[in-house]
Amino acid sequence: MIVTLLTDFGDFYPGVMKGVILKINPKAIVVDVSHSVEPQNVFQGAFLLYNAYKFFPNAVHIAVVDPGVGGRRRALAFECRNHIFIAPDNGIAYPSAKDDGIERVWVIDERKTSKITGVLSNTFHGRDVFAPAGAYASIGLLKEIAEPYEDEVVKLELFDYVVEDNFIRCNVVFIDRFGNVVTNLKAEEIKGKYLFFEGVKIPIVRCYEEVEKGKPLALIGSFGTLELSVREGSFAEEFGVSSSDSIELKQL
Amino acid sequence: MIVTLLTDFGDFYPGVMKGVILKINPKAIVVDVSHSVEPQNVFQGAFLLYNAYKFFPNAVHIAVVDPGVGGRRRALAFECRNHIFIAPDNGIAYPSAKDDGIERVWVIDERKTSKITGVLSNTFHGRDVFAPAGAYASIGLLKEIAEPYEDEVVKLELFDYVVEDNFIRCNVVFIDRFGNVVTNLKAEEIKGKYLFFEGVKIPIVRCYEEVEKGKPLALIGSFGTLELSVREGSFAEEFGVSSSDSIELKQL
Amino acid sequence: MIVTLLTDFGDFYPGVMKGVILKINPKAIVVDVSHSVEPQNVFQGAFLLYNAYKFFPNAVHIAVVDPGVGGRRRALAFECRNHIFIAPDNGIAYPSAKDDGIERVWVIDERKTSKITGVLSNTFHGRDVFAPAGAYASIGLLKEIAEPYEDEVVKLELFDYVVEDNFIRCNVVFIDRFGNVVTNLKAEEIKGKYLFFEGVKIPIVRCYEEVEKGKPLALIGSFGTLELSVREGSFAEEFGVSSSDSIELKQL
Repeated sequence: MIVTLLTDFGDFYPGVMKGVILKINPKAIVVDVSHSVEPQNVFQGAFLLYNAYKFFPNAVHIAVVDPGVGGRRRALAFECRNHIFIAPDNGIAYPSAKDDGIERVWVIDERKTSKITGVLSNTFHGRDVFAPAGAYASIGLLKEIAEPYEDEVVKLELFDYVVEDNFIRCNVVFIDRFGNVVTNLKAEEIKGKYLFFEGVKIPIVRCYEEVEKGKPLALIGSFGTLELSVREGSFAEEFGVSSSDSIELKQL
Repeated sequence: MIVTLLTDFGDFYPGVMKGVILKINPKAIVVDVSHSVEPQNVFQGAFLLYNAYKFFPNAVHIAVVDPGVGGRRRALAFECRNHIFIAPDNGIAYPSAKDDGIERVWVIDERKTSKITGVLSNTFHGRDVFAPAGAYASIGLLKEIAEPYEDEVVKLELFDYVVEDNFIRCNVVFIDRFGNVVTNLKAEEIKGKYLFFEGVKIPIVRCYEEVEKGKPLALIGSFGTLELSVREGSFAEEFGVSSSDSIELKQL
Repeated sequence: MIVTLLTDFGDFYPGVMKGVILKINPKAIVVDVSHSVEPQNVFQGAFLLYNAYKFFPNAVHIAVVDPGVGGRRRALAFECRNHIFIAPDNGIAYPSAKDDGIERVWVIDERKTSKITGVLSNTFHGRDVFAPAGAYASIGLLKEIAEPYEDEVVKLELFDYVVEDNFIRCNVVFIDRFGNVVTNLKAEEIKGKYLFFEGVKIPIVRCYEEVEKGKPLALIGSFGTLELSVREGSFAEEFGVSSSDSIELKQL
């Protein structure tokens, strides 16, 4: 069974999580989706998970971006039509779980997971709660460490933007390594041939090669949403756009 | 079957590629070679692939540094004596394929790979073309998604430097995490005891310990080529050398 | 058999090590613990290894932070009660090996490992010595490439701090991606309710939520040692603390 990991932990901590998982399920195939989510950016984590999980065969997905670690938030398992999502109850797994079709929600019992690992810190539930829960889910034993959860889960909406006539206000969800600015604006909202951003006219194209090197362009990227780029350059740097910015555009 | 990945994608995107590969071939062992190739530096990608592939058992190597994504360049598969290379036709896989011994070249049919994944973006052929093609190659089904390619492939020469008497002009191919400057100059060209770089005399040594801490040195590194280092320091920083620079040296 | 890797190599070089390992033991499950150890910071490597290995099932752990590569230091294998550690003789594996229970120490024969890989560089023993040795250990053939080592090994003490009345001097061992400052001060030394650092009063709490956003706090982190944090901020940045600093505190 595949167990994927998506966190904002950077390096080292995910390695420890893999140890915990493999100790419980030596046959798990652990796959890193990302450990570079912007620190504590739950929305970005949710967006990336949503755009990754569907490319996997049936799997357990552990997603931990968790500003509330050690506090009152619950640790949940979403048992869905094809996938299982293990995550804090802050919305990070909600859009993916809903998309796949939620069949049952479980609340993870931290005392039980910490009995398995022998530790329960207040800062690293990736190791002490989510990794053992994910490993148990991967061998069909979720019920050993979790109970059915009847309360409301925290909801999170990925595609919450404004489109009014020519005016668009949407969110930057991710800036990739090339400086491409990925937004949450769905392809279907793009109807014009040009966008205007901070007074600059940007052609809407099919691929990078359609503009000269160094020129800005807009296209529908691999997430199925609007991306702003500079050919062989960095849109984020040239236009001073940051991850989690809200941006305003006009289309013509 | 091992499937390796070498890209300039940084984080997240390689995780999605792994999902695609494992959905097609659940037994694939996917290994990251690097995802930190300098953005769009095809030469660096080619050099790293050449210095990695030969340490693997027979494998499928997917290499994607792809400034022309979504445009006219072809996606190729090089079936070689021991390995299979899956890459855009921009030269990135050519030196490795040639070194291993090219037996047949295939052109990948994007319509067929995108039927498998259900998507065909213009920006992420790592997911939509190269990952499914690599997965098919890993189960011996290359011919299901590719056709024999009879045209000329793009060639790329890794060891294109000038050596005239004492004068050397070669290329920086990689700067590692320690600030060591890896060049493409082969060991056999080094005949003296010293190199001069920008007026500084640099001893040619066998290992770092032969000079004092903080002092520059030159040696034959793990690629079998000239490397410039500062013991427990960064040559790249101290001498202002960047990846993809061309540098001039005198040897004595 | 699991083979873990912990190095200061950053990217690319670990990928080559995986090739070497899988060529010798195609069934190895290779797991990255970290490749972002601060360059040549042996102490940090030792601390991270110590806090990772115990969460793994029985495994071979290759740990390479190696300022002396190519020089006179020996390459060792520590055969312990449950785990095997493969590392340069600079102390990096010593605290973990001692903790697990050393049963036998081996010195690795570089001529034998390099016969396996066909190369012996003076700069990349990760590939030429430690990876093949680890792979041989993972198939129970350590004795084919190593001999019993009777000399003293280099020792390293992780918890070498000063506590006198209210005064504490300890070491920063790691700064995580959030800017949390991990020290080597064990939980049992913390007796007060507040710490003073550079004149600033810092409450000792159980979890981040106990202070307001942007405020400093101290807690026992996932390593079982003191950590200094700023809630949803970076302690390291705000207080100008660097990895490998020694810091002084008063507790009240």
